[in-house]
Amino acid sequence: MTHQPAIILVRPQLGENIGKAARAMLNFGLTDMRLVAPRDGWPNPDAGPSASGADIVLDQAQVFATVEEAVADCTHVFASTVRERGMAKPVVTPREAGKRMHAAIAAGTRPAILFGPERSGLTNDDVVCADTILTVPVNKDFGSLNLAQAVILCAYEFDQCRDETPDVQPAYEDGVASKDQLIGLMQHMERELAAKGYFKSEDRRDTQRRTLRNLIQSAAPSHQQVQTWRGIIKSLARPDAPDSSDT
Amino acid sequence: MTHQPAIILVRPQLGENIGKAARAMLNFGLTDMRLVAPRDGWPNPDAGPSASGADIVLDQAQVFATVEEAVADCTHVFASTVRERGMAKPVVTPREAGKRMHAAIAAGTRPAILFGPERSGLTNDDVVCADTILTVPVNKDFGSLNLAQAVILCAYEFDQCRDETPDVQPAYEDGVASKDQLIGLMQHMERELAAKGYFKSEDRRDTQRRTLRNLIQSAAPSHQQVQTWRGIIKSLARPDAPDSSDT
Repeated sequence: MTHQPAIILVRPQLGENIGKAARAMLNFGLTDMRLVAPRDGWPNPDAGPSASGADIVLDQAQVFATVEEAVADCTHVFASTVRERGMAKPVVTPREAGKRMHAAIAAGTRPAILFGPERSGLTNDDVVCADTILTVPVNKDFGSLNLAQAVILCAYEFDQCRDETPDVQPAYEDGVASKDQLIGLMQHMERELAAKGYFKSEDRRDTQRRTLRNLIQSAAPSHQQVQTWRGIIKSLARPDAPDSSDT
Repeated sequence: MTHQPAIILVRPQLGENIGKAARAMLNFGLTDMRLVAPRDGWPNPDAGPSASGADIVLDQAQVFATVEEAVADCTHVFASTVRERGMAKPVVTPREAGKRMHAAIAAGTRPAILFGPERSGLTNDDVVCADTILTVPVNKDFGSLNLAQAVILCAYEFDQCRDETPDVQPAYEDGVASKDQLIGLMQHMERELAAKGYFKSEDRRDTQRRTLRNLIQSAAPSHQQVQTWRGIIKSLARPDAPDSSDT
């Protein structure tokens, strides 16, 4: 079985936050939750409702008495915190941590991330158990990050390293219209406009025609939308008729 | 004043979630919150406590009756949702949306993101007001993303486009030890080991010496850590002495 990062909540205080962290983990396919000395014991009846269906994560959660025991089978441990003075560890962003965890897993080893208690964060003795400090680059004037929010940003960045969703997916399932369809539409529009006296003078006609063609080009319509445009032009060009929706 | 993306919560249900969204925004320096027809009116007494100090965002929040009014001064609008069939709009990731919003702001215009109600998400009529669909690439088997979680992922990816935090910051403020410090340490260690009979035979001595040197090299200690290592070697090499911490 492929390893995945262990998400280790150190002395979490509120069951509700454990549930939300579980939901955030499962949103990005992570299920290895570990709890170190949860304040209110385990299981905690407040966790389930806030997990919103991520029960599998809570059901499989392992409980440990100490951070040392929780990380025993891991190889590379990140501590989610701001850097403490005098702590001789490199500091990485969640994105860099995601890449390093992905590389660790590709090498057949298991990485982990430590998250501290809601109120106080990890202690220096917790951080000593880690190899690397992971600091989310937040607003320096408002750096207090909710526990589940810190978890989801780390889980997201890990998942980004394996996710294959293209950055952009095209707007139309039936594809953008071909140029001959667009030229047909342009000619249809010009013909109807000419019949209505839109082109005032022969010497401005070419400029107006280019403006119209750029209008259609920049709209980049689909096959289906070319048909919709043609219907609009046909209706507008028609002599007035009673609209069935008129009162 | 530089524009920033407007975060538009459409018909949000719980004040608590509005507060958490405000906190998530301010974590990444965003303050332009807009509310479209919040279910329980505005202001909502449940919002403040869950904003955990992001009061400036709630205090400045603007309320609108419709999505059209909320996006009136915006140029490029993203709808945070999964793609609806037949909706002729491109779909982008949060990372791509972050880049596009950054480019829109650099061009002096104002982008926005629409987020739907907690339970039901955006309707097709809401999505029609947007240019582009923004879909967070979540676990296909567990895609339900909490409102504030969706907001923080989008705010984070926008902020990543302007954040200059280096991916990796070195472990030591005082820098990695120079090679002459390392060689001094290695020679010290070899001298003390030789005195204790560590090098069993002359023909294995070179191999053992290389192993030791690689050990020190791969630890890549700082200036300070070289001094700590030297202290350890000196203490270990000393004849037994009563340890003051012994009972």
